[in-house]
Amino acid sequence: MSESEKPKGHTLSKDKVLTNGGNNVSSNPSDEMTEKFDLATVYVSDAQYNRNIFFDTSPQAVRLYLLYNHWFMQTLVYAFIIVNLALALFEDPAVVPLPIWATSTIEIICLSAFSVRMVHYAKVIPKDKFWKDPKNICIIVVVTLSFIDLTIYGALKSTGYFAIRWSRVLRPLLLVNVTEGRQLRRAFRSIRNALPQISYVFLLFMFSVLVFSLVALKLFGKRGLLTIDGSPYFTDYLDIVFDLYVLVTTANTCYAYASVIFVFFTIFFILYIIINTYTFMSFFLAVVYSNYKKHLKEEVRQLVKARRFKMCRAFSLLHEARGEGGEPVVTQTKWNHLVKLVKPNINIAHRELLWSVLDDQNKGHIGKFAFVQLADLLSIQVITVKSQPHPIQICFPSMYNSPVSRFIRYVVHQRMFVYVYDLIILVNAVFIGLDEENPVVSNAEWGFLALYMLEIILKLYATEPRAFFARHHFWNWFDTIIIVSALFGTIINSALKHSGGYTSRQILDIIFILRVLRLIRLVDSIKRFRAIINILIKIGPTILTFGQLIVVVYYIFAMVGMELFKGKVQFFEPNSTSPDQEYCGNPLLKGTTFAKLNYCKNNFNNVVSSFIVLLELTVVNQCGFTAVTHISARIFFVLFHIVVVIIIINIFVAFILEAFLVEYTIDKSDLQTSLEKKIEELELNVQQDGVDTGLVDAMESNDNELGPSEAGKQKPSLMFKIASRRSRTVDGLLQRMFETDIRPEDFVEEEEPENINFSNPVFDSV
Amino acid sequence: MSESEKPKGHTLSKDKVLTNGGNNVSSNPSDEMTEKFDLATVYVSDAQYNRNIFFDTSPQAVRLYLLYNHWFMQTLVYAFIIVNLALALFEDPAVVPLPIWATSTIEIICLSAFSVRMVHYAKVIPKDKFWKDPKNICIIVVVTLSFIDLTIYGALKSTGYFAIRWSRVLRPLLLVNVTEGRQLRRAFRSIRNALPQISYVFLLFMFSVLVFSLVALKLFGKRGLLTIDGSPYFTDYLDIVFDLYVLVTTANTCYAYASVIFVFFTIFFILYIIINTYTFMSFFLAVVYSNYKKHLKEEVRQLVKARRFKMCRAFSLLHEARGEGGEPVVTQTKWNHLVKLVKPNINIAHRELLWSVLDDQNKGHIGKFAFVQLADLLSIQVITVKSQPHPIQICFPSMYNSPVSRFIRYVVHQRMFVYVYDLIILVNAVFIGLDEENPVVSNAEWGFLALYMLEIILKLYATEPRAFFARHHFWNWFDTIIIVSALFGTIINSALKHSGGYTSRQILDIIFILRVLRLIRLVDSIKRFRAIINILIKIGPTILTFGQLIVVVYYIFAMVGMELFKGKVQFFEPNSTSPDQEYCGNPLLKGTTFAKLNYCKNNFNNVVSSFIVLLELTVVNQCGFTAVTHISARIFFVLFHIVVVIIIINIFVAFILEAFLVEYTIDKSDLQTSLEKKIEELELNVQQDGVDTGLVDAMESNDNELGPSEAGKQKPSLMFKIASRRSRTVDGLLQRMFETDIRPEDFVEEEEPENINFSNPVFDSV
Repeated sequence: MSESEKPKGHTLSKDKVLTNGGNNVSSNPSDEMTEKFDLATVYVSDAQYNRNIFFDTSPQAVRLYLLYNHWFMQTLVYAFIIVNLALALFEDPAVVPLPIWATSTIEIICLSAFSVRMVHYAKVIPKDKFWKDPKNICIIVVVTLSFIDLTIYGALKSTGYFAIRWSRVLRPLLLVNVTEGRQLRRAFRSIRNALPQISYVFLLFMFSVLVFSLVALKLFGKRGLLTIDGSPYFTDYLDIVFDLYVLVTTANTCYAYASVIFVFFTIFFILYIIINTYTFMSFFLAVVYSNYKKHLKEEVRQLVKARRFKMCRAFSLLHEARGEGGEPVVTQTKWNHLVKLVKPNINIAHRELLWSVLDDQNKGHIGKFAFVQLADLLSIQVITVKSQPHPIQICFPSMYNSPVSRFIRYVVHQRMFVYVYDLIILVNAVFIGLDEENPVVSNAEWGFLALYMLEIILKLYATEPRAFFARHHFWNWFDTIIIVSALFGTIINSALKHSGGYTSRQILDIIFILRVLRLIRLVDSIKRFRAIINILIKIGPTILTFGQLIVVVYYIFAMVGMELFKGKVQFFEPNSTSPDQEYCGNPLLKGTTFAKLNYCKNNFNNVVSSFIVLLELTVVNQCGFTAVTHISARIFFVLFHIVVVIIIINIFVAFILEAFLVEYTIDKSDLQTSLEKKIEELELNVQQDGVDTGLVDAMESNDNELGPSEAGKQKPSLMFKIASRRSRTVDGLLQRMFETDIRPEDFVEEEEPENINFSNPVFDSV
Repeated sequence: MSESEKPKGHTLSKDKVLTNGGNNVSSNPSDEMTEKFDLATVYVSDAQYNRNIFFDTSPQAVRLYLLYNHWFMQTLVYAFIIVNLALALFEDPAVVPLPIWATSTIEIICLSAFSVRMVHYAKVIPKDKFWKDPKNICIIVVVTLSFIDLTIYGALKSTGYFAIRWSRVLRPLLLVNVTEGRQLRRAFRSIRNALPQISYVFLLFMFSVLVFSLVALKLFGKRGLLTIDGSPYFTDYLDIVFDLYVLVTTANTCYAYASVIFVFFTIFFILYIIINTYTFMSFFLAVVYSNYKKHLKEEVRQLVKARRFKMCRAFSLLHEARGEGGEPVVTQTKWNHLVKLVKPNINIAHRELLWSVLDDQNKGHIGKFAFVQLADLLSIQVITVKSQPHPIQICFPSMYNSPVSRFIRYVVHQRMFVYVYDLIILVNAVFIGLDEENPVVSNAEWGFLALYMLEIILKLYATEPRAFFARHHFWNWFDTIIIVSALFGTIINSALKHSGGYTSRQILDIIFILRVLRLIRLVDSIKRFRAIINILIKIGPTILTFGQLIVVVYYIFAMVGMELFKGKVQFFEPNSTSPDQEYCGNPLLKGTTFAKLNYCKNNFNNVVSSFIVLLELTVVNQCGFTAVTHISARIFFVLFHIVVVIIIINIFVAFILEAFLVEYTIDKSDLQTSLEKKIEELELNVQQDGVDTGLVDAMESNDNELGPSEAGKQKPSLMFKIASRRSRTVDGLLQRMFETDIRPEDFVEEEEPENINFSNPVFDSV
C-alpha cells in the first residue's frame, strides 16, 4: 500500500457520502476486463443468492448462465410445473373432464419445456458435472417415463383397454429437482437425515403397539365387548393393532373405547396413552428436532463455505498486487464497477457506505478478507432515507409553516393520534359484527371510511409523501391499499344498489374482508404482539417451503389414493332418493359411524376431494374411510400418518421452535452490527425514540416513531436505516441461527484446494 | 500442612483399599463433638437430597428434624393425603356411597394428622421463618377452611338444607404444599414463570380466532348451511368462536365442517389450520420450552448454590486450622466418621475410594473445596463388585473346573447364548398370540417355562449368585421374578383345573401379563433400542411428578365439574327400556351426535367418570358433553384445554425434548468422570468388552457382558463400577442438564455472606 493512496481513501468521509461524490468509476475497461467483470458479477450474485451451480467460465456460457437464471425463465419453469401438476384436475377421475387429446397435448408441451430447460442447463455446466448430478438424471428419467406412460396410455385407451396413468405419481419430483428448488431439497434432506433415528424410535413404538395389542386381545378379547355398531371388539389381532395405532393420532371417531368402562380397561388405556401417545410422540419430535438442528448447522456451514469460495473466485478475477508484500487487493474503482453491475439500482450513497464499512482504514483498496464480506453486506437491506422538504412546503411555504399547520403536524406525530385510531378500529370491529342490513350500521361504514381516509391524508400532510411510501413502510402501504380499495368497493356497491337494487355478493365479500384485514393493524400497535407478529412474518417464507413439501407429498398420496379408492365412496345430494345414500353407495359402510355422520363427501373420486380428505387426515384424523377397502386403505392411512404427521409436521414444529429460540436469543448478526456501527459513526442513522424492541427488533413497524425525531431536531438530508429484512429470507434466518458457530473456522478452510468442488453433490442434490 | 502427615496419606493406595484397611476412626468423641457431627450429618444429607429447610441448630431441634425427615413420617403424610383425596369416591356424588358421619370422621382424622405434622414442623424451624413461608400458611388455611366447610356442611345437611362441599377443591393444594412436594412445586413454578409469555401468545391467538370467526359469520352465515342435526351453521358469533376453538384441538366430532365444501370454505379452513392449529400451537410449545429452559437453569443454579452452602456449613463445624497459613481442613478421621453417620451402610472400600478421589495428593486431610464435593460424590452410586469364588466351586472344585463345566460356562457367556434366547422369546410371542384353548399351545407354554428356568439356572451356574443378584442387575431380577411367578401361577392354575375343572380368570390374566412382560427383554437385546429404553427409564421419575401435577389439576376440575354437571347426562344399561335412553336422560341431547354414538357414560356423575371424561378431553377431545349445559360447559371445556393441553402437556413435551437433547449431547457429569478416573487409576474398574454405548451409557443392562471379562483374566478380588443411576432422580437429570454452565461461578459466590438466607422463599415455595 503506497502512501499516495491515502488521501483518496480519506475522501470517504461523511461529507463525501452526503454530497453524492465518489462516482469515479473508470467508464471504459477493455473487452477482456468486461468479461472478467461479467464473470465476477455472476460469482457475487451467485454468492448473494446462494446458487451453487458449477458453470463454465467461457463468456458464452456465462451469458447463457445469466439467461438461465433470469427471473422470467425461472417463473416460466414454475408455471409449466404448476400446469403439469394441475392436469390432475382434468384427467380421469376429473373435476372438470377434458378429452384425453387435450390433456395429453398440454402435458407434451410441459414435458418439452422441461426438456428444453435441461438442454439449456447442459450447455451451461460442464458435461461431466451434468451427468454426475442426480437431480438432472432424475428430471430426465421423469420426463422420459412420462412420455412412455403417455404413449402407452394413449395406445391402450384408443384400443379400449384398461390403463393406469402411473407416471402422474412422478410429477411432483420435478418440483423437487428443478434447479430453483433448493429450499425444498434442503427440507427433504433434513427428512432423509433424520430417518435412521426416527426409524429406531418408530420400530420401538410399533413394538410397544404390538405388545399392547396382544394384551388387549388376550385380556379383553373373550369378554364379548360390542361396538356401537354391534360388531365384536378386540377379537382380531390386526384390527386391534390398527385401532390402537389410530388412538395415537388422538382421533376418537374410529374407536369409541369409552363406551365400555371397567378398571382394567381404564388402566390399560391410561398406560397406553402415556407411553405411546405422549412419550413416543414427544420422542419423535425430539429426534426430529435434534437431527434437524444438527444437520442444518452442517448445511449452513457448507453454504457459507461455498459462498466464501465464490467470493474468493470473484476476488481472484479482479485483484491486483499492491505495494509492500505484494498482497493482492481490489481497488475502489473496480469495486464500484462490480457493485454497479451486481446491483444496478443501488444508489451511490449506499455504495459509498458499504465501501466505508469494508475499507475501514480508508486505504482506497481492500484485501480478500474484506472483499469476501461483500455478498453478506449486499444482502443487508439498507434503506436510504432522504430528507426532502414536503411538496406543500415548497408550493405554499407560509401556509405549511403557519401555527395551525404546525399544530396539525405535531398532533399527527403524537402517540395519542395512534391510540385514537386504534380505538376507532376497535369500534369499527364491533360495527362489523353487527347486522349490516341495519341502515345505521351501513351508514356508519361510510363514516369509518372517511375517518380512515382522513388519517392517511393527515399522515401524508405531516410526512413527506416519498418517505411515507418508502418501500420498507409496510403498514403505510397496507393501510393505503386497503382503505382505497374498500372505498372504491363501497362506492361501486352503492352505485350498483342505487341503480338497479342489485347487490353483488362477491363485492360485498371482498369489501368485508378488506374491513377485517384493517383490524390486524390494531395488533401491531401493541408492542408485545408486534414481536410475535414479526416472528410470524419471518417464518412466512419457510411456511411456503413446507407448503411445497406438503403439496409434493399430498400429490403423490392423492394419485395413489385415486387409483386405489376412486368410486368406493359416493356422495349423493341430500334430496336424492337413492337407497344407496344411507351408506355412501358402498354396502361395506352400512351402519358405520362414517355413513351415519354423512361423511360421504370424504372420498377419492377426484383430485380436489382427495386433497381435502388428506387435509382432514392430517388435521383431524378422519379415518372413517378405512372401513371401505379394508387392508389397503389401512396401510395407506398408516403410511400417510407416518409421512405427514410423524415426519413433516414434526419438522415444521422443529423449525418454528428453532426460529423462535433464535429470535429469543440472538438479536442481530455481527455483520449487520458492523454496518450499523458505521452508520452510527457517520451520524447518519435515523433516531428511534426509545422504542425498546422486545423479543425482536421491531424496526419494520416503527413508521409511527419516525415522525417525532424528524420534527425534533436538525438532521442531515440523507439518512440510513437497516431494514431487518435480511432474515426474512429462509437462508438468512438459517444463517443467523448458526452464524456465531460458523464464523471462525471458515476463514481458515477457505484457502484449501479441496474446496474447489463446491458444487458438492451431497450439498445441492436430493 | 506438616510433612509428618504425609505418610498417613500415602497409605491410601490401592493395597489399602483392597485389604479393607483404613478403619481408623476415633471411636469416642466428646458429647459436644457428637452434637457437631449430628448437625454436620444433617447438613450433608440435606445437601445430598436437596432439602432446603432452615432448621434450628439446637440439639433437640436437630433430633426433631431427623424425625421429621424420617421416611416413615413422610410415607404417613402421603398416605393421609391419598386417603383425603380418595374421599371423593365415597362422598356424594359417590361411586360407593358411605354415610356422611363416616367420611367426615375420616376427613377429621386426616386433617388432624396434617395439623400435627404442621406443629412438628413449627418446632423444627424458627418461628419467624415458619410464618414467612407461604406453603405453611397455605396448608393452615386449607386445613382451617376444610374444618369450617365440614362443620357447615354437617349442620346444613342435618337440618335438611342444600349444601356444597366447596373445600374439596382445595384438597390437592396439600399435595403441592407438603414439604416433600419439591418437584411438584418446581413444576408449578415453571408454569407460573411461563405464564406471562404464554398469555401474550394466547391473546394473539384468541384475537386470530375472533377475527376468523367474524369472517366465518359474515361470509358463511347467510348461506343457509345446515349441520347433520339440521340446525343452522355459522349464525351465532359465540358458537362460531367456540367451534373454531375446538377445531384447534384437532377434534372433529363437534364440527363436521367437511360435509359442506366449497372453495371459499376450503381456503378459509386451510388458512385457519395453518395459522392457528399449527403455527400458534407450535408457538405455545416454543414459548413454554424456552421459558422452561431458562428458568430451570436458574432453579438448578440456586439448588447447587444451596447445596454448596450447606456443605460449607458442615465444613465449618468440623474443620480445624492446619500448619502453614492456617488453612482450615478436615482430617480423614473426622471425615470417615461423618461419612459413616451419613451413610451407615457404606462399605469401607467405597469410603476409601471416595476419600482418595477427594484427597488426590494423599495429604490426609482435605480443604473446603474438596469437602464440598462430598454430597455430589455420595449421590453417585458406586457398585462394589466383589469377586468371590462360586459356591459350587468351593463345594465341588473338581466338578466345577472339569472341561464340561468350563464349556458350559463358556457357552453361557457367549453372545450366541443371548441370541438363542432372543429367538426363543420371539417364538414364544407367536405362541402367546395363538389360541390358548389349543392343547398344543398350552403345553408349549410348559416348554417355554422350562427353557427360561434353564436359562436362569445356567446363568446362576456360570456367575457367582451374589454377583448375579447384585442390586444393579435390573434385568436379572426382572427375569427371575417374572419366570418364577409365571411358574407358580401356571402350576396353581393347572392344579385348580385338574382338581375342580375350575380356571380362575384373574390368575390366567396375571400369568399372561407376566408372559408379555417377558417380551420386553427382547428389546433390550438390541443396542439401538436399549438407548431409547434407557431414556424412557430415566424420564420415568419425572413422569411421576407430571402425574401428580395432572392429578392436582384433574382433581380440581373434577370437583368443579361434578358440582356443575352431576346428573346432567345419565347412562342407561343397554337393555333398559327407558325412553330417555336415546338422549342420555337429557332432552338437550336429543338428536345430537353425542347421544347417537351413545357416549352417555361420559358424565360427571361420580369422581371416576369425571376423571375419565377429563382424560378423554385431554387425549381425544371428546367435547360432546358441552351441548348439555351450554355456556358454563363451554367455559369449563376451554379453561381445561388451556390449562392441560396448552400448558401442562407442552411442559411435559418440553421436558422430554430437553432430556432427550441432554442425553444426546452430554455423556457423563464431570464429577462422575473424576470418580471413574480414580477407579481406572487404581485399576479397579470392571472391564466392558467393547460395548459402545450408543446414545446413552448402557451400563445398567450390560450384565450379559460382565461374564467374559471375568472368565478372561486374573483380576483383583474387589472391583468398582459406577451405576448411572444418579441421573435417574429428577434432580440429578436436571443438574446434569446445566452442570457445565453452573460450575465456575458458584465457587466464587459461595463465600459471600448473602448466601446465608438459603431457604429463599422464591426457591422453595409456590
